[in-house]
Amino acid sequence: MSHKKKTPLSCDWKKPTSRAHSKKKVLTKNKSRIYRYKGESLWQGTKLEKYKPASQDWAHVIRQTLIGKRKETTKFHLRYFEIAPHGYTSFEVHKHEHVVIGVRGKGLCIVGKKKFSLGSLDILYIEPNAPHQLKNPFDEPFGFFCIVNAKRDKPKILHRE
Amino acid sequence: MSHKKKTPLSCDWKKPTSRAHSKKKVLTKNKSRIYRYKGESLWQGTKLEKYKPASQDWAHVIRQTLIGKRKETTKFHLRYFEIAPHGYTSFEVHKHEHVVIGVRGKGLCIVGKKKFSLGSLDILYIEPNAPHQLKNPFDEPFGFFCIVNAKRDKPKILHRE
Repeated sequence: MSHKKKTPLSCDWKKPTSRAHSKKKVLTKNKSRIYRYKGESLWQGTKLEKYKPASQDWAHVIRQTLIGKRKETTKFHLRYFEIAPHGYTSFEVHKHEHVVIGVRGKGLCIVGKKKFSLGSLDILYIEPNAPHQLKNPFDEPFGFFCIVNAKRDKPKILHRE
Repeated sequence: MSHKKKTPLSCDWKKPTSRAHSKKKVLTKNKSRIYRYKGESLWQGTKLEKYKPASQDWAHVIRQTLIGKRKETTKFHLRYFEIAPHGYTSFEVHKHEHVVIGVRGKGLCIVGKKKFSLGSLDILYIEPNAPHQLKNPFDEPFGFFCIVNAKRDKPKILHRE
């Protein structure tokens, strides 16, 4: 049995209410803050997310939303994706553009009929309505930032003929 | 005196006209393309720019616009800045937000009354209307990406009291 004191429930007891209030304020305002890189593709204050509902359209991808989920009012979102060795993203098309910045390892990007190799700090601009897919045929993880407009259309998944 | 053959000026001579036209097309459309990192803070296909008209508000800063000057229709621009050892950007304020990603070396960012240190891959979000300045008090160059909304207000230069 625990002997910890329980917090009294009282309308007059101000401190926890004010603390809770100030915590809420942090989450409802777009305050300046830093997301420190902890190494191993992780940033402080962000969470790993599922890339998409599991299907056969993609394999071995993790994602983190770095800017766009914590009340920022930017017209863009910044995400980090990482494709495990021999993994790939879905083959898809949409109206919105992508800006991809290589961060870790190397990979390939198919855009229409072109194939681009992508290494650290290489920057790839993907035009609107171009079918595209990112792949990691190598033995090391392939990590990259991807910047997109905050307001964007839903990708259509494509199937190769 | 040059003995090079001169291109005949003729309305009937199609080839140069068509070539010039296709060159123009590349520049007037937002085509997928890659900007390869050449090392030493340079990307293929981009140009070094002046940071701002010379004044005493800043010192030793170079900039490159990576996304935003070549017909992209993204709602954001991606730039790379580099501050030489002991240099700094102007102390300024504006409505638009900044997202800063550390790339090379390390530096400091003053945002309102806070001071953030910034290293490789650290991500700093600067809220709207926060007076801010980036500094490099160290002996190595400090390079960083800075993402901003494409449509943004003009910074106001501040002077410390």
